[in-house]
Amino acid sequence: MSTRDRIVAAAAQLYGRYGYTGIGLKQVAAESGAPIGSLYHFFPGGKDELAAAALRMSGEGYQTLVEGILENMPDLAAGIEQSFALAAETLAASGYVDACWIETVALEVASTNEPLRLVTAEIFERWVAAAAAWVESHGVPADQARELGIAYITGLEGAFILARSLQSPEPLLATGRMLAAAAREVQTSSRKAVKAKGARR
Amino acid sequence: MSTRDRIVAAAAQLYGRYGYTGIGLKQVAAESGAPIGSLYHFFPGGKDELAAAALRMSGEGYQTLVEGILENMPDLAAGIEQSFALAAETLAASGYVDACWIETVALEVASTNEPLRLVTAEIFERWVAAAAAWVESHGVPADQARELGIAYITGLEGAFILARSLQSPEPLLATGRMLAAAAREVQTSSRKAVKAKGARR
Repeated sequence: MSTRDRIVAAAAQLYGRYGYTGIGLKQVAAESGAPIGSLYHFFPGGKDELAAAALRMSGEGYQTLVEGILENMPDLAAGIEQSFALAAETLAASGYVDACWIETVALEVASTNEPLRLVTAEIFERWVAAAAAWVESHGVPADQARELGIAYITGLEGAFILARSLQSPEPLLATGRMLAAAAREVQTSSRKAVKAKGARR
Repeated sequence: MSTRDRIVAAAAQLYGRYGYTGIGLKQVAAESGAPIGSLYHFFPGGKDELAAAALRMSGEGYQTLVEGILENMPDLAAGIEQSFALAAETLAASGYVDACWIETVALEVASTNEPLRLVTAEIFERWVAAAAAWVESHGVPADQARELGIAYITGLEGAFILARSLQSPEPLLATGRMLAAAAREVQTSSRKAVKAKGARR
C-alpha cells in the first residue's frame, strides 16, 4: 500500500468510529504511521481534502462489495433479504462498530460543509443508480426500479443506525424482509400492468 | 419556558445542526441565553447529562408528532406513504437542515459513549414499539407488524440522510412508496394465510 493510500485508509477508519468532527490530522498521522508533513504533502487542502478522498475511496469500496453480492443473487426479493442478512452478520462480527461510515460524515457535514456535502451526495447518487440498475435487470420498470433502489439504500443506511445503537441484527433483518416484500409487490403489480396492457390490444 | 427547558431546547437544536462532538457547553449557553453556571446547576453531569436530556425530550417529541399523524390515517399503506410525504415537505421547508437529529448523535456515540448509546437505543426501541402497535392496529399479525414497524423507522432515518445530503425530497417519497408496497404485500399475504387456515378447518 502506498503512503497516500495508508493515510486515506487510516482516515476512513477513524472517521467511521469517531466521526469527522472529532478527528484531527494528527490522529490520522499517528494511526497511519505517516509523518504529519506527509499528510500536508498529499493533501494540501488539509482535512477536507483528505476527507473527500476517504469518502470517495470508501464509497467505491462499498459499492463494489454490494454489487458483487447482488449480481450473484438469482432473484430480486431473495437478493434484498440475503444481502441485508449478510450485512447484519458482518456488523455483528465487528461488535457493531464497523458499518457504513459515510452516513455518519454525511449527517455531520449536511448543514456545515458544502464541499463535503456534495461529495456525499455524489456517492449516494451513484449507489442509488447502481441499486436501481440491479432492480431493473430483474424486470422492474425504470421508475419503480429507481424507487426500490432508493429504498434499498435508505433502508440499509437507516438499519445500520438502529443495529449499531441497539447492538442487534434485528433492524437489518427486518428491513431486508420488508423490502423483499416490497419487491414482490412491485413485481406482481408490474406483471399485472403488462397483462392488462396486452389484454387491451 | 423554564430556564432548564430553554437550555435543553438550545442543545437539541445545536446538536441537530452541528453534531454532538462539535458543540460545547459554552455554545449551548450562548444559544439559550442562560449563564454557563446555570448549565452546571441543572446538569451537574455536564455535557453527557445535558445530551441525554435533549435526546429524551426530542425522542418523545418526534414520537408524539408521528403518532399524531399516523393515528388519523385510515389505511396502512396510505398512512406510510403520506407520513413520508409530510416529512419530505417539512424537511424541504427547513432548507434540508432540520431532520431527525437523534440519528446524527446515535452514530457519533455508537462506539464511543456507552451511556449515550443506551439512551439512543431506548428511544429507537420506543419508536419501533409505537410504529409496530400502529401497524398491528391495522390487522397485521404481531411478528410482521414489528418488522414493518422497524422498516418504517429505519426507512425514515435512512431517507432523512439521503434527503439532506442530496437536498431533495425524492429519498423520502420513494422510501415511503416502497414501504407502502411492503404493507400491501404483508396485508395480502396475511389475509391469504387466514383464508388457508379457515379452509383447512
